[in-house]
Amino acid sequence: MPHPDGERRVPLDIWRRQVGAILVGLGHDDEGAATIADVLVAADLMGIDSHGANMLPLYERWIRAGGATARPEIRVERDHKAVVLIDGGGGFGQAPSMMAVRIAAERARDFGVAAVAIRNSNHYGAAGVYVRRLAEAGLIGISTSSVWRPAIVPTGGLEPKLGTNPIALAAPSARGRPFLLDMATSTAAIGKIRLAEQAGEPIPEGWALTPEGRPQRDPAAALREALLVPLGGYKGYGLAVAVEILSSALSGAALTPADVRGEGAYDVGHFLLALDPALVRGGGFEDDLDRMADALRATRPLDPESPVLVAGDPQYACEDDRLANGIPLTAGFAALLQELAARCGAPFLLDGEGVGH
Amino acid sequence: MPHPDGERRVPLDIWRRQVGAILVGLGHDDEGAATIADVLVAADLMGIDSHGANMLPLYERWIRAGGATARPEIRVERDHKAVVLIDGGGGFGQAPSMMAVRIAAERARDFGVAAVAIRNSNHYGAAGVYVRRLAEAGLIGISTSSVWRPAIVPTGGLEPKLGTNPIALAAPSARGRPFLLDMATSTAAIGKIRLAEQAGEPIPEGWALTPEGRPQRDPAAALREALLVPLGGYKGYGLAVAVEILSSALSGAALTPADVRGEGAYDVGHFLLALDPALVRGGGFEDDLDRMADALRATRPLDPESPVLVAGDPQYACEDDRLANGIPLTAGFAALLQELAARCGAPFLLDGEGVGH
Repeated sequence: MPHPDGERRVPLDIWRRQVGAILVGLGHDDEGAATIADVLVAADLMGIDSHGANMLPLYERWIRAGGATARPEIRVERDHKAVVLIDGGGGFGQAPSMMAVRIAAERARDFGVAAVAIRNSNHYGAAGVYVRRLAEAGLIGISTSSVWRPAIVPTGGLEPKLGTNPIALAAPSARGRPFLLDMATSTAAIGKIRLAEQAGEPIPEGWALTPEGRPQRDPAAALREALLVPLGGYKGYGLAVAVEILSSALSGAALTPADVRGEGAYDVGHFLLALDPALVRGGGFEDDLDRMADALRATRPLDPESPVLVAGDPQYACEDDRLANGIPLTAGFAALLQELAARCGAPFLLDGEGVGH
Repeated sequence: MPHPDGERRVPLDIWRRQVGAILVGLGHDDEGAATIADVLVAADLMGIDSHGANMLPLYERWIRAGGATARPEIRVERDHKAVVLIDGGGGFGQAPSMMAVRIAAERARDFGVAAVAIRNSNHYGAAGVYVRRLAEAGLIGISTSSVWRPAIVPTGGLEPKLGTNPIALAAPSARGRPFLLDMATSTAAIGKIRLAEQAGEPIPEGWALTPEGRPQRDPAAALREALLVPLGGYKGYGLAVAVEILSSALSGAALTPADVRGEGAYDVGHFLLALDPALVRGGGFEDDLDRMADALRATRPLDPESPVLVAGDPQYACEDDRLANGIPLTAGFAALLQELAARCGAPFLLDGEGVGH
């Protein structure tokens, strides 16, 4: 049933086929397109819409600018016991990162802990997707990534010098779904500023700065100027730098505050760590995780109607809804995807028949 | 020269001997006391006063209560390739953590990455001290710890369920001193609330809550009630849980939100990770770290008199001052240490002669 503003719901399989078809239209081979589509669609299912199919227009722009390639040669550059360095070949980050998930899982089950660094990559979707895969395989996963666009202002400064550098951590549970933290190191995600802009509302103090260093309350200006306040101030600034160190300095990728790049040619770096709790402590980790989550959810709530949650709860609830009822598609985004499909010679699969309910 | 409020400066060697003598007086053997003293004094030098000699009265209380032991049997409980589990034997966390630094460094140079989990431990001083040692040895270090006292309120809740769970990360530099981040996952450190109390000033909104969930502006009430807001809201809540997972669920230590303990018997867990950048990427890491730090410090500042800093800069500046001029000692803290020394039969070394200048 169409939503009043033209929003429909699209079943997962059609959504994934559409994303994959556009990626093939942009030049990817079938396997590369399927890997990228899987990661983008996983974000769409969890409600991390800013890191899903929404990225396709930017992916198109970066490929057409010649900065990103749809046919990367991805290869293991260095390999030493529990650490591996992957060269992403200048393509998007999903394929080298899924390769990193496989390698990190295999090595962590051997050595107890393993780390994979990736350089010469690009946008990799939502960090949480990779660590969730590790947690579903019984491992603790940590993922960080640098981001091409300087947007975080170092504390006491007036210029953006770091991306919104995300950190994700997931851990396996015995009874429930994994603990799943996936956060940017800015106070507010860019997606939330966009929502305020769409709603025509000012953003709170503490999210962004004006070029003079005062609180920026206008969401449109905040998006244009990209002068975001790090999470909670100087601590978030430190965390954003820590992410840059793990993602880009450790892999030898471009450093956001130091290296200038052309459109799409971002040489993004990622970091992935896997730990096998069974090799560290023997059994019992997953049960402890459940005990901890139970104790947190039992916290006396401020609002009796809003129980205290644990990281991942909102995303899993969204995923359950979208698996059952489809992924929301606005008329505006449908039109945008239709034009994009036309431009790259891909079929358009979302025009109604069998779509929405 | 005495400070107007009775503050003197004490040279490092006397300060360290005094801390060590009190720890011996509390029952530690010479080696155990020296290890704990080294870590506490390292925090005092860097200006992390809340995690230095200031802890001694609490250490005394926990030992006298029978919850902490001064003669722990510290042993490697499990050992598998790149991961090791240490049992801290119910003593303070410094000795097992310095053992973890040695093991993690040795294993990281072999496997590329190594992790050490510690359980059955207690307060371990400042997290930054351990990762700084790793960075000075050419490695990236990450340290986390759970904290015995519930103080962070999960977002949407009215009760504290997590400690101020710190995260520290250090990385080696070619030209300068290591990048050194050491932060609690609460918005404000407890030490900053104490400073506001001493100054008789209200604390800003966003640091602590009243029992009804409104902003708590009274620092004395904030310290008494321990209802701290996580760093930047729900992201800091997620980070504090991530620290609890790495520190306590991974090691099998007590879980702050779930396990009730007697005074001093806290079964605290710690986590230490070491990465060898030379094995991950070959050379160049340290130079990249310098390039990044230079670019960050070159950020156009809000106040031309206050250049933009990088994590660790304020601590190193403080250390330089205190190495040259001594560690500040107020008359009040001197009296407190004198009483503590008398109670445990330790010599008091800070009563003037050769002290202060």
